[in-house]
Amino acid sequence: MNAIRAKVASRALVADDRLPSIRGLAATMGVSPSTVVEAYDRLVAEGLIRARPGSGFYVSSAALPPLALAKDQPQRDRAVDPFWVSRQSLDAETGALKPGCGWLPAEWMPTEALRRALRGLARADDAVLSDYGATRGSLTLRRILMARFADEGLEVPPEQLLLTASGTQAIDLVCRFLLRPGDTVLVDDPCYFNFRALLRAHQVRIVSVPYTASGPDIASFEATLAAERPRLYVTNSALHNPTGATLSPQTAHRVLNAATAHDLTIVEDDIFADFEPEPSARLAALDGLNRVIRIGSFSKTLSASVRCGFIAARADWIEDLVDLQVATGFGGPSAVATEIIASVLSSGFYRKHVEELRRRLARARRDVGDKLQRIGVTPWLMPRGGFYLWCHLPDGCDSADVARLALADNVVLAPGNVFSASQTAAAFMRFNVAQCRDPKLMPTLQRAIGR
Amino acid sequence: MNAIRAKVASRALVADDRLPSIRGLAATMGVSPSTVVEAYDRLVAEGLIRARPGSGFYVSSAALPPLALAKDQPQRDRAVDPFWVSRQSLDAETGALKPGCGWLPAEWMPTEALRRALRGLARADDAVLSDYGATRGSLTLRRILMARFADEGLEVPPEQLLLTASGTQAIDLVCRFLLRPGDTVLVDDPCYFNFRALLRAHQVRIVSVPYTASGPDIASFEATLAAERPRLYVTNSALHNPTGATLSPQTAHRVLNAATAHDLTIVEDDIFADFEPEPSARLAALDGLNRVIRIGSFSKTLSASVRCGFIAARADWIEDLVDLQVATGFGGPSAVATEIIASVLSSGFYRKHVEELRRRLARARRDVGDKLQRIGVTPWLMPRGGFYLWCHLPDGCDSADVARLALADNVVLAPGNVFSASQTAAAFMRFNVAQCRDPKLMPTLQRAIGR
Repeated sequence: MNAIRAKVASRALVADDRLPSIRGLAATMGVSPSTVVEAYDRLVAEGLIRARPGSGFYVSSAALPPLALAKDQPQRDRAVDPFWVSRQSLDAETGALKPGCGWLPAEWMPTEALRRALRGLARADDAVLSDYGATRGSLTLRRILMARFADEGLEVPPEQLLLTASGTQAIDLVCRFLLRPGDTVLVDDPCYFNFRALLRAHQVRIVSVPYTASGPDIASFEATLAAERPRLYVTNSALHNPTGATLSPQTAHRVLNAATAHDLTIVEDDIFADFEPEPSARLAALDGLNRVIRIGSFSKTLSASVRCGFIAARADWIEDLVDLQVATGFGGPSAVATEIIASVLSSGFYRKHVEELRRRLARARRDVGDKLQRIGVTPWLMPRGGFYLWCHLPDGCDSADVARLALADNVVLAPGNVFSASQTAAAFMRFNVAQCRDPKLMPTLQRAIGR
Repeated sequence: MNAIRAKVASRALVADDRLPSIRGLAATMGVSPSTVVEAYDRLVAEGLIRARPGSGFYVSSAALPPLALAKDQPQRDRAVDPFWVSRQSLDAETGALKPGCGWLPAEWMPTEALRRALRGLARADDAVLSDYGATRGSLTLRRILMARFADEGLEVPPEQLLLTASGTQAIDLVCRFLLRPGDTVLVDDPCYFNFRALLRAHQVRIVSVPYTASGPDIASFEATLAAERPRLYVTNSALHNPTGATLSPQTAHRVLNAATAHDLTIVEDDIFADFEPEPSARLAALDGLNRVIRIGSFSKTLSASVRCGFIAARADWIEDLVDLQVATGFGGPSAVATEIIASVLSSGFYRKHVEELRRRLARARRDVGDKLQRIGVTPWLMPRGGFYLWCHLPDGCDSADVARLALADNVVLAPGNVFSASQTAAAFMRFNVAQCRDPKLMPTLQRAIGR
């Protein structure tokens, strides 16, 4: 393979040149013909050469661009909108710093447990490796989730759980099921930026209420429900994204009462739940999955590569959501993904991993918070857990300008207004403390904010 | 673990009972305390017991239903609609025969290659196992696809390829991008039943044209374009589902001219392409991805468990589809899935596997076709490849009735009208020849059709 590749690279062989015959090359190289067949097959799969039946192998006429040139790089000049952070951080160049991104560094993740799970999966039944699997997804994983829900006092039989291709897909399915274009949807201000992108894709009208240190501003929440009649409220409980704030039991109770009074359905995304030192108030537990739909995923603490989300909701809704997921995806997550996740979650190792993450993140929040304050960047509050600090920039700073400047230095930031439906967070910035350890970061940031 | 499970099963331990202390049980069982910790951790993950910090382990108050009772079983009395076949076959009981399903038996799939790929993946970089990955999906896999497209004369740079969570998701994304509720969409009659379910979820109006042995009836196609002005035409080329027919070059050319004249966009799903003995006409190749969008997946020949689909389309459309996939799924397929698929496709083994499948299926089509004819069930045509036979039932038979009767005998069939937008295929039934080998099948079928 290397011999052929080298000849193509040096132009000794060019497009449409015939390759040596299998027997000829085998004799020249002193290998068996089957070795040459295997090498040619792999080169065909790579696209470097192609077979012409009955006539041998030829250098492919589609000259492949070198890998480096073909690499996806995000456009740097696009608008600083809710896609800005996701596109810049997902497609970042190697070596980029990503304090704006929404995940932990790979070395913080339970990769050894994932490797063990993969080796175990290599011994699974044929059907696990090749069949579509049940429409609701792995029963084993649903039973594990059920046990976790029981711990918060939420009884969910496995029929009321639907596994989805990702946490975002879970919200998307719910939105497709409940919303029609032109409906009004309520979000927190600030809220996770992708809620805004997702809701825009559903062509709904977005209204928002200010988020306080103990949940949505309840007076504003009640007034907005009365005035705007939103169909749905999409929120994070546990640790709120981007603020890191925690819903108080009193606010949860009043939110649910207002929702009942105005027939509002609530999507509760508690994707950061495992980062909490101790559980906080949950709308789904309070409501018993009557008008609250719980969604979540395993991307933040287990793996974002092994993708899987879930929906827990009323039985009749789940039944319809199963149909919708069959129609639009012919099922949910890869059975390979759910097997890996179930294996890691049930290994006993997971609990220790999460405890270690919490300790590590508590230190990182303190350290990074101190460093940021020294350059005039002030955390809005000190969260009980998780990896986000929602920070106020020094007076006069516009976070979109700061983010654009930092990007020129290969630093991806998360400017405040991508999280704000009302566009009132220009002075804010979300920092991922686990992605702030590079010593180059603070000087770059200091330059970008002009201090 | 077994000791505790047995005590719970026999009610020697009931909800809220405290478990033996770790040291106590270790001494009793003659194992180390860390073994007991590990066992308790696993039982916690399973939901059988729970930890109360500082106080030990207790039997979970959420008494789990026995696994058998919690198993998802499809409702047998639901309407015979496009969901009927998918729900019945995906959630079929163990031991059910599934001549109506759309996939090969697990033992026909390349499970050894999948196992090798999993073992290889267990040695991958941490980032592959834990990060989200690029927004367009694995560059390696896109380059492999690019080489395959080049073989059919279709030049697609990797930027014009987007990997998706499944083939169905690929069509769904395209529909979300191009359609608005109330638009008109054209399908073949018959067509893959899930196209109908998917389009219903988009709230569009479905019109259909009869499918002939060489593609859509072209006179009807042209008349429908003029009269109904559909925005999109969704079709299979290569081997048409359910008929197994092949688009002829002349029909392909006229379809494309009519599409150009009426500004119609075409989604070409050639998911069965690898089953063809030699390549047939392709709309995407003829058009050069101008108004044709190619979608596909690896579910039929490689694995339906390792899920991944793709979209090849105009560069500007792909750019927008990337945003849409970020908004609605925060990316596409699991990086774990794309690594496995790229590894199998580039192993050289894949080509041999597909050749063997073709030989095996040619025999199965002949054998099953003969057996069906003997009981009065007649193939509409003998396909060049693939695993479907679209058959006419004996006169007077309604395929929905036959399917309901067979289901009572635990046989899942695919009755004709689920494939027909015009509901004119009640006399037809689709058979998957690879799922027709059980000797119990033909007698059951014979009974169900009343012969």
